[in-house]
Amino acid sequence: MKPAIVMQTDFTVQTPAVCTMYGVCQMIDPTLRIFDNTHDIPNFDTYQASDALIQIVDFWAPGTVFVSVVDPTVGTDRKACVAKLSNGSFVVTPDNGSLTHVKKYFGIDEVRTIDETRNRLESTKRVSIFHGRDLFAYCAGKLAAGIITYEEVGPLYPVETIIEHKIIEPSIDGSKISGMIETIDPHFGLVASNIPSKIFTAHGIQDGDTVLVQITHKNTSVYEQNVTVQPSFGYVAIGQAVVVVSENSKMQIAINQGHFKDTYGIDCGPDWLITFEKTS
Amino acid sequence: MKPAIVMQTDFTVQTPAVCTMYGVCQMIDPTLRIFDNTHDIPNFDTYQASDALIQIVDFWAPGTVFVSVVDPTVGTDRKACVAKLSNGSFVVTPDNGSLTHVKKYFGIDEVRTIDETRNRLESTKRVSIFHGRDLFAYCAGKLAAGIITYEEVGPLYPVETIIEHKIIEPSIDGSKISGMIETIDPHFGLVASNIPSKIFTAHGIQDGDTVLVQITHKNTSVYEQNVTVQPSFGYVAIGQAVVVVSENSKMQIAINQGHFKDTYGIDCGPDWLITFEKTS
Amino acid sequence: MKPAIVMQTDFTVQTPAVCTMYGVCQMIDPTLRIFDNTHDIPNFDTYQASDALIQIVDFWAPGTVFVSVVDPTVGTDRKACVAKLSNGSFVVTPDNGSLTHVKKYFGIDEVRTIDETRNRLESTKRVSIFHGRDLFAYCAGKLAAGIITYEEVGPLYPVETIIEHKIIEPSIDGSKISGMIETIDPHFGLVASNIPSKIFTAHGIQDGDTVLVQITHKNTSVYEQNVTVQPSFGYVAIGQAVVVVSENSKMQIAINQGHFKDTYGIDCGPDWLITFEKTS
Repeated sequence: MKPAIVMQTDFTVQTPAVCTMYGVCQMIDPTLRIFDNTHDIPNFDTYQASDALIQIVDFWAPGTVFVSVVDPTVGTDRKACVAKLSNGSFVVTPDNGSLTHVKKYFGIDEVRTIDETRNRLESTKRVSIFHGRDLFAYCAGKLAAGIITYEEVGPLYPVETIIEHKIIEPSIDGSKISGMIETIDPHFGLVASNIPSKIFTAHGIQDGDTVLVQITHKNTSVYEQNVTVQPSFGYVAIGQAVVVVSENSKMQIAINQGHFKDTYGIDCGPDWLITFEKTS
Repeated sequence: MKPAIVMQTDFTVQTPAVCTMYGVCQMIDPTLRIFDNTHDIPNFDTYQASDALIQIVDFWAPGTVFVSVVDPTVGTDRKACVAKLSNGSFVVTPDNGSLTHVKKYFGIDEVRTIDETRNRLESTKRVSIFHGRDLFAYCAGKLAAGIITYEEVGPLYPVETIIEHKIIEPSIDGSKISGMIETIDPHFGLVASNIPSKIFTAHGIQDGDTVLVQITHKNTSVYEQNVTVQPSFGYVAIGQAVVVVSENSKMQIAINQGHFKDTYGIDCGPDWLITFEKTS
Repeated sequence: MKPAIVMQTDFTVQTPAVCTMYGVCQMIDPTLRIFDNTHDIPNFDTYQASDALIQIVDFWAPGTVFVSVVDPTVGTDRKACVAKLSNGSFVVTPDNGSLTHVKKYFGIDEVRTIDETRNRLESTKRVSIFHGRDLFAYCAGKLAAGIITYEEVGPLYPVETIIEHKIIEPSIDGSKISGMIETIDPHFGLVASNIPSKIFTAHGIQDGDTVLVQITHKNTSVYEQNVTVQPSFGYVAIGQAVVVVSENSKMQIAINQGHFKDTYGIDCGPDWLITFEKTS
């Protein structure tokens, strides 16, 4: 069976843009299966594109063709590429930071520039503002359909030159476990660190324990409170903060049926640091 | 042909959550067809989850596997179940009120607890906050793919013990026909009662008649006006209220090209009662 | 392979409405492939429905069955029709202006009224407010599945009588090139004229040139500035206006990583005119 195509963008579905990406793929091969990750990535935010991608890659079969289009410099000389991941899946994307997390946490084996002379929709060659449709969806469709091999995408370039956002790695200082805020959920207000839950386990922090949670933005304290660690939200009262293991097995803070992110004005990225320290 | 999977949640599609549910199903069987009901159910609102489900079950073929995940107490001891409906379709859901309407109006023949030891995604067993992906989508995928039979979902439990929201049944008192506000449409502002249109017919209320419509919230009057009954919105002037038969064949009030719900601040549920009485 | 069905509405996906349209099609034939254009067309706005349609028709294979449901007068005597386009694709829609652009720019070969006696869902015949599900999706499903031929949709009527919105055609007056604002993108704030890029080319306007852009609403000036013409947004500084070729090969104005539409309060339609004049 041909691999699925999974698309994510910052286009929203308020306009016909995403639908034309589906159509381009379906014209190449009407048997292609197409699915959506979110199209609500914040506009132009290549960090969050990267983070949205790492959250899904492991839940799709090897060989899946991911298309990620957050592309503020579309039509300029930024690279358009297809990365081959460590499990044989592909990411078709501008090389603009959107590959940061899959490179660091999942592994990229090879990366190729898309050869526009053969892997670009011919009929719209005068349009330079919509590579999502004309280049990325089109190339992804040909790759998923088996019309081109990965080698036929275009020339290889060094994986080490892929553009990456700055990531503050988790670190341990005595009883303090620190990291950055990696993911924010704009809907439920969940705030996740990049600290794997196994670090908590390794340091003997268990469900029922209390940890002092400190969040800083550019070294200014934004949040500092003792919070209980639990398996899930419903172990604390509605409105109470709780530390849980996130869906990606990182340590996360939330308010049960509340909105931690908006309550405290939290965002994600390397300017946002979080520290946990067991207090009881 | 394998049955379709139809998903509804309160996750929105702003985050990657729903996409991982698709992926889990596709990894089980890439031939599975997956469709979406709304993912914009108000957060944690199991009443509206239940109502969203009853609005679609009759428009999907018998055997369809519905997945409903509005799950404020995920990871606690609330039951995770698969209900078998009277037409042979299935609902995979937390047992938390989300089955109220299908049980009352459509019929549930059997219900089984999901056996987590065999029907849960193994790779994320340390994550307790995302049963939508790890338990409900996974179990639904196996059921739809035919990898497990319904009997292999887990042990039966009594249908009578399914958790239900309070429903105020329609009643007739002389010329007054009363019920509760069952459904509100946040987009077009439609406000639907749970009074079947056939009750209107049985009481001789026809298109062109005028009815006094009274809406109360916890016994306080919120709306009381004479409104004409018509086949559709466009039979009255733009901005005028109209009583019509809803898409689910219940009696509904609306404003032609307006927003009845927001204009009068109406919501749904057993605290919201509506009465119709023919005046001319 | 059976043609795809592509749906657009003003229903949003906040409610179960669109899901029931999928289900009706899937009950007719579970092998039908169904895709979505936007469901966020502004409520009741048949001009924007028409514009959303023209943006996608050329990116879907000939024979595709488009379903467009922006239907403020549903259930009244407005015509329900299926138009056959010049490439053999179909549009199933109320005849209420939604066909304006495909008729003018793409070509409609034939149009037929939908015969409700044979091409309407029987089970909901008492419901008059949801032709999207009961008539348009149902008829589209039968047509795409090959259960009915196009001839069996219903009787022909003259293409010339199709209801059309007023369109101000592009015109040239000396060095001034004028047209109307055809498309606005509510998300990225792009504002596109109906002036094909080839008119710019024919008049010697090239990337790097500067044009005076004038926008008027009902003859009142809303915007008048010199703007550079470039291949894409990223050729100007963030926050700066730029004229580019739109995804539909029309001339478009935008602000790089800004929101031209909201910044200047622009909308689309025949009351909104735009003029470009080369100044350097």
